[in-house]
Amino acid sequence: MAEAASRRRGRGGGGAARRAERTAVSIETAKYIERNIPLYDILDDEALEIIETNAEIILEEVGVNFVENPRALERWREAGADVQGERVHIPRGLARKLCSTAPSRFTQHARNPERNVEIGGNTLVCAPIYGPPFVRDMEGGRRYATMADFERFVKLGYMSKWLHHSGGTVCEPTDIPVNKRHLDMLHAHMTLSDKPFMGSVTDPSRAQDSVEMCEILFGKDFVRDNTVMTSLINVNSPMTFDEVMMGALEVYAENNQACIVSPFIVGGAMAPVSVIGTLTQVLAEVMAGIAYSQLVRPGAPVIFGAFVSSIDMNSGAPTFGTPEASQIIYGAGQLARRMGLPFRSGGSLCGSKLPDAQAAYETANTLNAVLLGGVNFMLHSCGWLEGGLVASFEKFVMDADQLGVLHKLAAGVAADENGQAMDAIREVGPGGHYLGCAHTQANFKEAFWRSDVLDYKPFETWQDEGERDTMQLANAKMHQMLANYQQPALDPSISEALATYIAEKKASMPDAFS
Amino acid sequence: MAEAASRRRGRGGGGAARRAERTAVSIETAKYIERNIPLYDILDDEALEIIETNAEIILEEVGVNFVENPRALERWREAGADVQGERVHIPRGLARKLCSTAPSRFTQHARNPERNVEIGGNTLVCAPIYGPPFVRDMEGGRRYATMADFERFVKLGYMSKWLHHSGGTVCEPTDIPVNKRHLDMLHAHMTLSDKPFMGSVTDPSRAQDSVEMCEILFGKDFVRDNTVMTSLINVNSPMTFDEVMMGALEVYAENNQACIVSPFIVGGAMAPVSVIGTLTQVLAEVMAGIAYSQLVRPGAPVIFGAFVSSIDMNSGAPTFGTPEASQIIYGAGQLARRMGLPFRSGGSLCGSKLPDAQAAYETANTLNAVLLGGVNFMLHSCGWLEGGLVASFEKFVMDADQLGVLHKLAAGVAADENGQAMDAIREVGPGGHYLGCAHTQANFKEAFWRSDVLDYKPFETWQDEGERDTMQLANAKMHQMLANYQQPALDPSISEALATYIAEKKASMPDAFS
Repeated sequence: MAEAASRRRGRGGGGAARRAERTAVSIETAKYIERNIPLYDILDDEALEIIETNAEIILEEVGVNFVENPRALERWREAGADVQGERVHIPRGLARKLCSTAPSRFTQHARNPERNVEIGGNTLVCAPIYGPPFVRDMEGGRRYATMADFERFVKLGYMSKWLHHSGGTVCEPTDIPVNKRHLDMLHAHMTLSDKPFMGSVTDPSRAQDSVEMCEILFGKDFVRDNTVMTSLINVNSPMTFDEVMMGALEVYAENNQACIVSPFIVGGAMAPVSVIGTLTQVLAEVMAGIAYSQLVRPGAPVIFGAFVSSIDMNSGAPTFGTPEASQIIYGAGQLARRMGLPFRSGGSLCGSKLPDAQAAYETANTLNAVLLGGVNFMLHSCGWLEGGLVASFEKFVMDADQLGVLHKLAAGVAADENGQAMDAIREVGPGGHYLGCAHTQANFKEAFWRSDVLDYKPFETWQDEGERDTMQLANAKMHQMLANYQQPALDPSISEALATYIAEKKASMPDAFS
Repeated sequence: MAEAASRRRGRGGGGAARRAERTAVSIETAKYIERNIPLYDILDDEALEIIETNAEIILEEVGVNFVENPRALERWREAGADVQGERVHIPRGLARKLCSTAPSRFTQHARNPERNVEIGGNTLVCAPIYGPPFVRDMEGGRRYATMADFERFVKLGYMSKWLHHSGGTVCEPTDIPVNKRHLDMLHAHMTLSDKPFMGSVTDPSRAQDSVEMCEILFGKDFVRDNTVMTSLINVNSPMTFDEVMMGALEVYAENNQACIVSPFIVGGAMAPVSVIGTLTQVLAEVMAGIAYSQLVRPGAPVIFGAFVSSIDMNSGAPTFGTPEASQIIYGAGQLARRMGLPFRSGGSLCGSKLPDAQAAYETANTLNAVLLGGVNFMLHSCGWLEGGLVASFEKFVMDADQLGVLHKLAAGVAADENGQAMDAIREVGPGGHYLGCAHTQANFKEAFWRSDVLDYKPFETWQDEGERDTMQLANAKMHQMLANYQQPALDPSISEALATYIAEKKASMPDAFS
């Protein structure tokens, strides 16, 4: 809403305008990140070639399972794989060749075209947390998530400047029947936000419902010709593709909608305890899954996914923000780029039970690897707590604020005359200060990234205001954002059609809670 | 103390040994980091050349001030600079040429040779916080630091596995007269720890005292031939070298002791608000300071320092862990490497008043840049709070634990047969799990980095234990470390000689408190 802000500025002059600027409700969304900085390559070519060779060996010799999915086995057989029962042995080179029809970059459309995102190449699109059954906030503590919580997260996502994407299952609305909640979740994303969103994957029929709701929102022709959803297809690691996830993938691929094909790995449990071994398995799994998407529809948009945590061998708990996880993000990014595919990893991952220092260390370690590792689509960008069991309202706001750091770092360093600042250095000279110099006056507004949540106040002010820690500051910010929330306008006829579709769907089946 | 631990293991067999291992007091120090991973270069050659050209222009045309230091002016005049009053104009190329006699890498010796550190090349040496007048812990809150606090920090540093260096002014012992506290601080480093340490820089005479105390500790001949201190010489940015800091640098250089020549910059106040402008000024300042050290004694060991924070233009507060600060760490590292000099930057920098999520985000952002940016000597590696005004006991322990992440990440990725783990992948196959496989059994102990502070427990256990946040966990760990502290042995005659030296020095002058 940069335009709205400037209109406001235009209305009054001088002091009035500045006051308006300070008090105006800002519903501004930054453009997705386009990196103007190099990426970090942790692996050399030799290591990458070892991984690629070994992944082909796995696909051919060990094979992958496509469970309870005769149509998939048929497709693989037709493509030249050796199918034994549900085990698919993919001859060397075949999976990679099939993957080559997938686009290296695609546009996901939002109902507000200003919110469209480009996924691939030098971009980074940030989407919120996905999947937790619990929520936590300072007022209510840890509890099962409800649809009211879900809607609150969608609103916060809409109000978060650095968040480009509304996400999918930001939390599980456990008060809605399992077989109906996807309708309410999609409805919330479609009506409470105008950012792009994700479709349902918990059953092929729900993927189909997602497509049909998008046809109402965007129009049938538009959905036929454009990608309007990016959905999360987890691989059941090691090397197992179940019928639910593959069924959803089939629906989305047939409809030219994007899927993230993403091994979900707790290291040491679902993959070997070594980085190279894990990367090898990830590559094999992603190649098999993406190859299959291209068998369903050549050219269907896909993302190379890698969700890998470490494990604490003492307690068996998954751990996050660890050095091994960073190494895997860097390495998987390299593998994805060598395939020319968009890459998904990372997020605000942490194992902490509270939005405390542990949560922030672990999250920041991951966010740094995401930026330099070339991630194009970051799910779980904000709000993740307790190994993904909990969506935290305060952490959502804290993390979403930190995404601003990534935007500014990615913008790179200007070495033009203004960036060189030689006039300033000459003007100020030894022993002077820069606060008042012309270059500072001209540049200070954009010069330094500034948090909207963290504390920059003098000690005494901070003390007078109650010695609030980050969680408390984020809680206040969260309430402020919700108070300032304004629902984006939607054509009433579309709104009505969506409501009718949902009502009819819900009436057509009994409630199911498991 | 790996040896001691293994002796303990050797004593009993089987279960007894394992119990001993679990309960043994571990006073283990990791070797300084040797990076086995690539560095991250954010700037291209063109930008680096612009900075280098402009820095030469600054040195020649704007010049730098050497304040109240006739001997320095004389040295510069002799070297070919154009000296006008206290302003030294250094002809293009001269400073860089003078810097070329500085070593690219040096050993700083500790009294325990196992604790020696190599500074330069691919190494990263971690030293604790430096300089704060206040301390904070959960029991006592925020208060002026005392000598008792100082000693507590030295003990914690000694007990911290990932900390290679005991540091210098870990906090200001404000209960000791200003003109005498350096003696007590050095005494604490020398007797409560056996890790390397820093010398005093607050007066040339105190630098001289530091050298003399080292002569007692290491022997005169040893100190003449070896570097036993690395001390912090701040540049009074912009482009001013004051007589106190330069006086200390002169003492250290003459004695072949190492100095960090480090601009101390709050961006927008002491340097331009642009990254390239700041890097240009940093380079000019460091070149002038290091060139001067080489005029004092060619070959004296030095470190290219850069301490740069952003500024919040709303409140004027310095801000940390920001994208601009990371860009400057990356860029300054490149400049230092092009000069073939060891590089100092970073640390556990944050603006937060508490060891909370803000503190951890900001710290982790900096630590990640330090590792990939090629820092060789990291001052403030742990314990920094509130913009450096406060040394936090809890944050010291939390940050020192996070340094373990850097160690493991820096070790790189093994692509050998064991790392490839193909046997494990074949053994487990689709749908299996890796927890019990042979490769996991053989590798799990070293496979994943594990925090000694953070919470990895099941939710219910965590809840039963009082829902502790990271600060509370670190507080408990801190008390445990202090309870387990064992003073390293020191030759009683050295101990006595140090005590005598300090007593005589103290008796020779009246107390001064400012």
